[in-house]
Amino acid sequence: MLAMNLIRCCLSLARRSPSHFLNLSSSQTLASSSSSRSKLITFQTMVSRAYTTRSHPSGKLLFRQLFEKDSSTYTYLLADVSHPDKPALLIDPVDKTAERDLSLVKELGLKLIYAMNTHVHADHITGTGLIKTKVPAVKSVISEASKSKADLLIQAGDKIYFGDLFLEVRSTPGHTLGCVTYVTGDGPDQPQPRMAFTGDALLIRGCGRTDFQGGSSHELYKSVHSQIFTLPKDTLIYPAHDYKGFTVSTVGEEMLYNPRLTRDEETFRNIMENLSLPYPKMIDLAVPANMVCGLQDLSAKPVEAISN
Amino acid sequence: MLAMNLIRCCLSLARRSPSHFLNLSSSQTLASSSSSRSKLITFQTMVSRAYTTRSHPSGKLLFRQLFEKDSSTYTYLLADVSHPDKPALLIDPVDKTAERDLSLVKELGLKLIYAMNTHVHADHITGTGLIKTKVPAVKSVISEASKSKADLLIQAGDKIYFGDLFLEVRSTPGHTLGCVTYVTGDGPDQPQPRMAFTGDALLIRGCGRTDFQGGSSHELYKSVHSQIFTLPKDTLIYPAHDYKGFTVSTVGEEMLYNPRLTRDEETFRNIMENLSLPYPKMIDLAVPANMVCGLQDLSAKPVEAISN
Repeated sequence: MLAMNLIRCCLSLARRSPSHFLNLSSSQTLASSSSSRSKLITFQTMVSRAYTTRSHPSGKLLFRQLFEKDSSTYTYLLADVSHPDKPALLIDPVDKTAERDLSLVKELGLKLIYAMNTHVHADHITGTGLIKTKVPAVKSVISEASKSKADLLIQAGDKIYFGDLFLEVRSTPGHTLGCVTYVTGDGPDQPQPRMAFTGDALLIRGCGRTDFQGGSSHELYKSVHSQIFTLPKDTLIYPAHDYKGFTVSTVGEEMLYNPRLTRDEETFRNIMENLSLPYPKMIDLAVPANMVCGLQDLSAKPVEAISN
Repeated sequence: MLAMNLIRCCLSLARRSPSHFLNLSSSQTLASSSSSRSKLITFQTMVSRAYTTRSHPSGKLLFRQLFEKDSSTYTYLLADVSHPDKPALLIDPVDKTAERDLSLVKELGLKLIYAMNTHVHADHITGTGLIKTKVPAVKSVISEASKSKADLLIQAGDKIYFGDLFLEVRSTPGHTLGCVTYVTGDGPDQPQPRMAFTGDALLIRGCGRTDFQGGSSHELYKSVHSQIFTLPKDTLIYPAHDYKGFTVSTVGEEMLYNPRLTRDEETFRNIMENLSLPYPKMIDLAVPANMVCGLQDLSAKPVEAISN
């Protein structure tokens, strides 16, 4: 608990005073060959916007896309395999496939440090809580704007480090109030082309619905155009779902061919308001559970909701 | 028909006299900027083992993995986007998703030249024939050993060019008599790491059944160990199916963790002979259709089988 408070305090300080953390991070990097390295990695994550990575050869990212068939959800595994610890993170794990994901992490010799969500899902229960019960050192991550519980509540502009690689946080509300897109870092030492994990904000040739959980077609249009379509055109789009068997797209492709988001805002809003979709069948179970990262708060009942 | 006979003749000659075709290929390369380029690409495909590519910068491969949910089949789209024509091929297309695949090819500005199968599938109908009805210039490809009809009947050691990139053919029988694995080329001008499209010979942490279509657990064991596990360990494994949501593996991973193929041959054969799998529900429809590439032979009835 003391450690958690320290981490929260550091994150808060980092937001207020980036320059302080830049210096701190640099000294940490110098010490990185010592036995305290694993602690430093966790700490570097907190240093969000300010930390400057050392250069390292490209191609150090291990990347796996994983699929959960019932809800057509993609989970993503990323790791820095150039780092001695091979620190790894999972984006949008699902409870049903958590065991599969952890087996893979183990087989690949990775050290899972984060289990992250792009948003509070309404169609499945996140695997984050279950993963924490199996690997207690894993930190759960979700946006502060989601008003959910997690170990780390992130904001737009935060950087989430795993080894020398990082993800940037971009705020992309509209499907839900707290949706974020995680984007791989910008720089010669980061994977090229960049990769954007867009959750339900931008799907391949589609987008998430906007009629629940603080959704807003106006906000979603603004999010995609200002936060995703401004990325380089070769940026790879990895969504939280696909229902047609696509696995990846690019910013350039979606700017040309997304049937909804290529339209003007008024047309987009009309489309979104007339989708006539059924009530999400999992929403009443999934949303309360996902507000506590599935089982994240082990002292509370798993499906006990926090008011939104 | 004359053209087809000429192609078959060239393929046959190439197998007998690689050095002759090496010279021929070189002269074709010199002529590649002329208007006859598209014809040359088709012809280069025939020149199999002998053709030497020009060097070009790496990263020219456009690659997409596509999924068909009912049969859990992966279709792969590969293209050389550094080439003015952007020549492309599909591996293991499915009839149900052929329209999706062709739309993607069109949106990406590619020129589809081949629709290929790793083997005669028993669980779905190939999209090859349907694709040919929509894009008549596309050539269907399958192994000669499958005893099926197709425009191009390939053998072990053949090289299938699309632009300056190519796939090598490796014979990997055991799931069926005519199974092949397509492997991206070896060389600094070809994608690194290499990629192996293993069909049902090697699945992620599994393998195809061996109790139908000339299957043999002895042959499958030999195929995987001699033709796939001898590839560099970082070679990416892209199978024809996955039932657990995995999208990719590596040779190194399967050599360590495949629960069947890491065992000695006797144990492997025992495993395969005691799987107690149900009769494949699509086999009686799919196999006869796939022997003619779905609808490949438009003059024949689609489900008219050729004796095996």
